[in-house]
Amino acid sequence: MKIAKRTKLDDMNIGLGKRTRLHRMLYEHGPGNGRLLILPIDHGVEHGPIDFFPNPPSGDPEYQYRLAKEGGYSGIALHIGLAVKYTHDYAGDVPLILKLNGRPHIPSGDRPLSAQNATVEDAVRLGADAVGYTLYAGSPRQDEDFIQLMGVRSECERYGMPLIIWSYPRGEAVAQMGGRDSIYAVDYAARLANELGADVVKLNVPKVGDPKNQESPEPYRNLYEEWKNLDENEAYRRAVEKVTASAGKTMVLFSGGSKVSDEDLLTKARICMESGATGLIFGRNMWQRPFDKGLEITERVKEVLLSA
Amino acid sequence: MKIAKRTKLDDMNIGLGKRTRLHRMLYEHGPGNGRLLILPIDHGVEHGPIDFFPNPPSGDPEYQYRLAKEGGYSGIALHIGLAVKYTHDYAGDVPLILKLNGRPHIPSGDRPLSAQNATVEDAVRLGADAVGYTLYAGSPRQDEDFIQLMGVRSECERYGMPLIIWSYPRGEAVAQMGGRDSIYAVDYAARLANELGADVVKLNVPKVGDPKNQESPEPYRNLYEEWKNLDENEAYRRAVEKVTASAGKTMVLFSGGSKVSDEDLLTKARICMESGATGLIFGRNMWQRPFDKGLEITERVKEVLLSA
Amino acid sequence: MKIAKRTKLDDMNIGLGKRTRLHRMLYEHGPGNGRLLILPIDHGVEHGPIDFFPNPPSGDPEYQYRLAKEGGYSGIALHIGLAVKYTHDYAGDVPLILKLNGRPHIPSGDRPLSAQNATVEDAVRLGADAVGYTLYAGSPRQDEDFIQLMGVRSECERYGMPLIIWSYPRGEAVAQMGGRDSIYAVDYAARLANELGADVVKLNVPKVGDPKNQESPEPYRNLYEEWKNLDENEAYRRAVEKVTASAGKTMVLFSGGSKVSDEDLLTKARICMESGATGLIFGRNMWQRPFDKGLEITERVKEVLLSA
Amino acid sequence: MKIAKRTKLDDMNIGLGKRTRLHRMLYEHGPGNGRLLILPIDHGVEHGPIDFFPNPPSGDPEYQYRLAKEGGYSGIALHIGLAVKYTHDYAGDVPLILKLNGRPHIPSGDRPLSAQNATVEDAVRLGADAVGYTLYAGSPRQDEDFIQLMGVRSECERYGMPLIIWSYPRGEAVAQMGGRDSIYAVDYAARLANELGADVVKLNVPKVGDPKNQESPEPYRNLYEEWKNLDENEAYRRAVEKVTASAGKTMVLFSGGSKVSDEDLLTKARICMESGATGLIFGRNMWQRPFDKGLEITERVKEVLLSA
Amino acid sequence: MKIAKRTKLDDMNIGLGKRTRLHRMLYEHGPGNGRLLILPIDHGVEHGPIDFFPNPPSGDPEYQYRLAKEGGYSGIALHIGLAVKYTHDYAGDVPLILKLNGRPHIPSGDRPLSAQNATVEDAVRLGADAVGYTLYAGSPRQDEDFIQLMGVRSECERYGMPLIIWSYPRGEAVAQMGGRDSIYAVDYAARLANELGADVVKLNVPKVGDPKNQESPEPYRNLYEEWKNLDENEAYRRAVEKVTASAGKTMVLFSGGSKVSDEDLLTKARICMESGATGLIFGRNMWQRPFDKGLEITERVKEVLLSA
Repeated sequence: MKIAKRTKLDDMNIGLGKRTRLHRMLYEHGPGNGRLLILPIDHGVEHGPIDFFPNPPSGDPEYQYRLAKEGGYSGIALHIGLAVKYTHDYAGDVPLILKLNGRPHIPSGDRPLSAQNATVEDAVRLGADAVGYTLYAGSPRQDEDFIQLMGVRSECERYGMPLIIWSYPRGEAVAQMGGRDSIYAVDYAARLANELGADVVKLNVPKVGDPKNQESPEPYRNLYEEWKNLDENEAYRRAVEKVTASAGKTMVLFSGGSKVSDEDLLTKARICMESGATGLIFGRNMWQRPFDKGLEITERVKEVLLSA
Repeated sequence: MKIAKRTKLDDMNIGLGKRTRLHRMLYEHGPGNGRLLILPIDHGVEHGPIDFFPNPPSGDPEYQYRLAKEGGYSGIALHIGLAVKYTHDYAGDVPLILKLNGRPHIPSGDRPLSAQNATVEDAVRLGADAVGYTLYAGSPRQDEDFIQLMGVRSECERYGMPLIIWSYPRGEAVAQMGGRDSIYAVDYAARLANELGADVVKLNVPKVGDPKNQESPEPYRNLYEEWKNLDENEAYRRAVEKVTASAGKTMVLFSGGSKVSDEDLLTKARICMESGATGLIFGRNMWQRPFDKGLEITERVKEVLLSA
Repeated sequence: MKIAKRTKLDDMNIGLGKRTRLHRMLYEHGPGNGRLLILPIDHGVEHGPIDFFPNPPSGDPEYQYRLAKEGGYSGIALHIGLAVKYTHDYAGDVPLILKLNGRPHIPSGDRPLSAQNATVEDAVRLGADAVGYTLYAGSPRQDEDFIQLMGVRSECERYGMPLIIWSYPRGEAVAQMGGRDSIYAVDYAARLANELGADVVKLNVPKVGDPKNQESPEPYRNLYEEWKNLDENEAYRRAVEKVTASAGKTMVLFSGGSKVSDEDLLTKARICMESGATGLIFGRNMWQRPFDKGLEITERVKEVLLSA
Repeated sequence: MKIAKRTKLDDMNIGLGKRTRLHRMLYEHGPGNGRLLILPIDHGVEHGPIDFFPNPPSGDPEYQYRLAKEGGYSGIALHIGLAVKYTHDYAGDVPLILKLNGRPHIPSGDRPLSAQNATVEDAVRLGADAVGYTLYAGSPRQDEDFIQLMGVRSECERYGMPLIIWSYPRGEAVAQMGGRDSIYAVDYAARLANELGADVVKLNVPKVGDPKNQESPEPYRNLYEEWKNLDENEAYRRAVEKVTASAGKTMVLFSGGSKVSDEDLLTKARICMESGATGLIFGRNMWQRPFDKGLEITERVKEVLLSA
Repeated sequence: MKIAKRTKLDDMNIGLGKRTRLHRMLYEHGPGNGRLLILPIDHGVEHGPIDFFPNPPSGDPEYQYRLAKEGGYSGIALHIGLAVKYTHDYAGDVPLILKLNGRPHIPSGDRPLSAQNATVEDAVRLGADAVGYTLYAGSPRQDEDFIQLMGVRSECERYGMPLIIWSYPRGEAVAQMGGRDSIYAVDYAARLANELGADVVKLNVPKVGDPKNQESPEPYRNLYEEWKNLDENEAYRRAVEKVTASAGKTMVLFSGGSKVSDEDLLTKARICMESGATGLIFGRNMWQRPFDKGLEITERVKEVLLSA
């Protein structure tokens, strides 16, 4: 059962600035052919230097920039400080996605809001090809989030800057309805990004087999019952198709999350691409490896991107 | 006992921009003759994709747009993301009502505020013929709501954009005085919309027979005692007349709420129209049906609209 | 013991715009001769349609406008929605006082703030002769109130628009010090309006005989002990003189509150006018009567206004 | 042990506007010779009319203006409403200090913030020679206070308007560390005013002998132990010198607080002036007397000012 | 194991204004040769006059300015009030670093935010060569901090003003994860400053041997276990190298904290400079000494700065 087809530039009814910049990432850099492979290095804000311990050289943002260039990524996503200080030698080579907000995991909280630390105008000044914004769907402070996002979206409109929403279910209310990885929550987050004006949305694939899905409202509880006994990959495919469909005419990126085995990574990447995704955004799975291994897996992922 | 008469464009003392745009919806599209039939598809923000399960194709906003065009609606009401991405093929065919705020039902709350996600200027840029705003009458955050609404109203004035207020009693204080569907609460909400500058107000018909009305203050408790033994349709009529009168020189739309039987829908639509309403705003009752059935019931509703 | 004299236009050191507009209300409309008789119809926001049950036609704002015109009031005070929709036929006939903020009595609260729903610029555009602002003296949110009021006052200065402050003691702290109708609280509210820049202040007459006055600080407790055994009208006079004196060079309007007997109304109106008030603001006492009765009592009140 | 010397205009490195206006108060009005005697009448906002009972005519702001003029004060400090309505006959005769914020003592609170009710621009328009701002040092809402003050200070810079900070330790945290009158708290408040850009600071003299000083941190506890056995006037002198030194290149005004005996007032005034103060700000001690007595004590205080 | 190298001006990809101003501090004043020695005197805001008791003349900001000039510091860091009043005689001699925010230690709090009291524009007007901003990493109000910082950073960009971030872990969440001096917390704070756009960051050296490090997450707990048995200076070196590396292309200043022995101070200064720091920011360790002793230790520190 295939619900979603891959969203194309022509589907999106966007103006020239957004089109030009997205085209650059979709066709002129990275795997090309309308696929996206994004390297995120916003972990320094979100988690602190803790993520760099498995591969200490990755603590230097130069590392990710070099990987992005030599690996041929469609873009690199990072915060203003890194953008200003580390882009110089890669300007024009690697499309820049300026991440506009971020939330350190201390304090961890039940009422999360990811506060802005940079503006769309910063992105324009730095020659960026897109901005990134984290929306915490379902957070008790969702109202503030909407208003902050409205400001960003308006500026994106004004400057022709593509808007990538990291759409994450979060907060105490979400935790009580199946959790941040439930089919219900991710599906809602996908639709919200489409409704609120994302050009591209980054989603995490729901955990289909997690019994916490039983705490979600009907008919999502049913979906869980229906899918939980399927083959794992088939269940994964169903979940990807469901949330990709809910994202509608918004290009979808799936993330890799914490580091997994290569085969698992590639299999799941293929399923995502076969089910309507426009691309992948892989961070720790790429740069927590020695540099040559990072390049190697990058090549294999790009093959999947182009063949699916 | 008929209190209210239907508000006409000439009653409202509005400027040229508002008049032109309302005229387009009242006479040039939809059933015409000063009647409104609006198709809302803001459910993706308010409820998430959950409302699309009964009729999966409705999960694609294209579905509603097609229904609005082929069914000949006066307008379609949706959020900025859908407006930008799905209007292209229908531009000029279906008047656009840009919904400016929305509140996902997670977190559900005792202190609701529907935060803005788009502006009147967005509506102007997209060629919209009205904007929609949800006011939570009685919410503990009503003060913030008033100020947000004041900004929207001012911009509407500035651009000649009609303002449709979804006037909903909500929040813990309302719950303690008869609830959101009490005659008292809806009547207050209707008046508030008139006082605060709505051109059109969307109301839910109060639940006349609900014993929770006993928790409302006098003389509303009396109304309940007086009306509860009436024939159901007569009671319904009284309620519609009461709140329509309280809306004064504001055009009134009644909603359909969750899906009901066809006969019930049509009977109640007729009562609304006979009692001073300007039109109806039916969402799930229309698009939770297969497409041809949706068109069929649309036709029947339009007959009611024109004959009442 | 007469402390206060009636404030005159010449006492107030105001600019041309304010002077012109106040002159219009004081001399060209209403009873004239420097007296004010104001008809308020902000009850739809403050109380909802509940106040219209005793006289159902009063639910249509047309009723109040007609009463204001035929009765010859100095002005009518209402909110933006009513101003826009109902003024047309009375423009120029009845001076418009645009009420800029309002607070529905749900939720009733211990921390009240009356949020703005219109601006001084709206008032200018609509041809108003004054704006009204409700200040909740003593509320825990008084700091926000001051800042909101500062904005309004500045705009009034800029446009030469008279500022009428409804100065009401409210909130949990007030309740613990004698209550909203204590001599202490009203006297404070009167002074605050004078200090914060009101041109005209609306006050409620303190309830001199209420034992709750004992909870007020000294020397107000003493005043209560001293006045409580006086003749009721004499006590009333003392209270009016005290708070009128505290209002200083601010014109004072006294309100009628809920409906009382005609004789009582007229007696107290006379005392107010003899004790320094500039006028009266009577709502329910006027429009909760049949139309001809409303005109009749209006005439009698105007006689008092001109003879005292 | 004399630590502080009196701050002179030449010490302060201020621009022409501030210099001109301060010069007017220091040399052209009041006692002259670089001394300040200020008459405050902001009590109507801070305390309500309660302070006027001991001398009822003082309830009319005319009283204070007349006292300021006939007594030859360096300036009068009051709020916007009084400034607008009562200055007319004294314009040019008595320098105006517009008090920009105020906090009524209801609700009394553990988290005080004195909210703005007027702007520096108001002060300019009214021909004022300075503005007054109350800072609640140590309040839990001190962060908001800093930001509000930053706005005022910037505008003062822009318009060349002298900034007088009423620097008051307040709030629950202060209460736990020796209280608002501890040497520790006042000393901190004095330094804060200097650090945050006051041109002149109003301080209360710490209560040296109050055992609550023992709750202050070291070495202030030591100061208390050291000073508590001194002669009262000597202890007073030490306290004045300490906090005046902490105010640095900020001119210092000491207040009188509630009414005290004449000899006490004059003795303490002399100590203040001998210990580095630039002047005094005496309200209730002046205007809670019959008019001629007020003039009389004013004369005696001015003698102290000029001889010390 | 040396991870970090010293960041050079050429590494930072900054515009002309920032480059010119930093060059002035790095090469034209202070020790020169790309080293920084900063004298902070923001203690009057942060701690009050309490820090001046050990050396009373230090209570007069003149003292620090004289020390900065005669000792030849790269810059002096202070708040707006001191900058305006005390810079005059040193203008051009001592580079000014305007501290833009500050938080008095009353109220001490679990939810700290350092509120702005001056702007980048103030700094420009006063001829400053940098601004200072305190970021409370991990505070529950970190979201507000980010937004306030974003405003400051944008203005710095606009005016070419170098931004020095005092990056301090603070607040209840930090306290629960090893505390403000844990390796984990300081390392996070260092990275955050780099990510959020600091040009220079001020850090405190983590307390490697403190058992509270055990409450930090892995792998920081491991670092503690690994380092706690090292020679104290070697452990110190490891900590400095770690956090300097995390600061990336941001120049690092280490602070002295409360006063320590001279040998300890110099040893640790040497380690900092050998491990990638650009300079030192020493306050109490310098000005809590008699003036000649302050100059003496300054000389010795400068020798270390130039030799390491």
